[in-house]
Amino acid sequence: MKLGRLNHIGIAVPDIDAAIAHYRDVLGATDITEPFDLPEQGVRVCFVNTPTQSGPNSELHGTQLELLAPLDENSPVHGFMQKNPAGGQHHLCFEVEDIAEARTYFESLGKRILGPTRIGAHGTPIFFLHPKDMLGQLTEIMETPKEDAHWSN
Amino acid sequence: MKLGRLNHIGIAVPDIDAAIAHYRDVLGATDITEPFDLPEQGVRVCFVNTPTQSGPNSELHGTQLELLAPLDENSPVHGFMQKNPAGGQHHLCFEVEDIAEARTYFESLGKRILGPTRIGAHGTPIFFLHPKDMLGQLTEIMETPKEDAHWSN
Repeated sequence: MKLGRLNHIGIAVPDIDAAIAHYRDVLGATDITEPFDLPEQGVRVCFVNTPTQSGPNSELHGTQLELLAPLDENSPVHGFMQKNPAGGQHHLCFEVEDIAEARTYFESLGKRILGPTRIGAHGTPIFFLHPKDMLGQLTEIMETPKEDAHWSN
Repeated sequence: MKLGRLNHIGIAVPDIDAAIAHYRDVLGATDITEPFDLPEQGVRVCFVNTPTQSGPNSELHGTQLELLAPLDENSPVHGFMQKNPAGGQHHLCFEVEDIAEARTYFESLGKRILGPTRIGAHGTPIFFLHPKDMLGQLTEIMETPKEDAHWSN
């Protein structure tokens, strides 16, 4: 296994519209995607695109911030929000070339995987690894979107 | 203010050598800097360099993971470790062009700044913003290292 790109960090927020205003008006983000519901994950989601490098003319292909608000009390993010009402860092997401191979790999190391492989917010297959097996980090593993893949370079 | 590069995410860990082994052996990181003590911050630190894009020949200029272990019980990370003994996400760090200007900007918005501007782990000036004013996120602001700066592009 070779470390892939840090695709995004998941940030739980109590209110997605307020969070968008914060990232735009306080931190100066210029490219935030429209929020959408992801009912399979129990969350409303949008992405803050960050600059690849600092400067006025940078591309916006840096690690994304994924803002997540729980859709309801059954959301997996609901418990996190109970403990962190103001919001906070929720997970890290690394890319892999092949999701099935990655699943087999982590299983072979005895790492607990939370539920089945499913389609994530980027439209590619993902799974989550248990934070207790990952130094306290809820860790998402996602297959690189085809348009971004450079695995065979 | 325009959002700068997401320079790194700070990850608190109980033991830096065990964490290095985890990132190398489990997640497949190939470039991890030698750990060093940063007594002004009360932490022992190293950086995991992540790929700019997924694939075998990528540069390693993606958002870094900063692994932080408390140096002693007076460390600002000590309290975090008491609450999260396995470790976990500790802070986010965004780059700015000019640290003094950024400090004035956040002060003008009424955001609480934790202590004086000081030299951070990358050798450039930094300060921290209070998580209660930043949607629950302890947020570090750092001046872009000179060799990485593209602000005037």
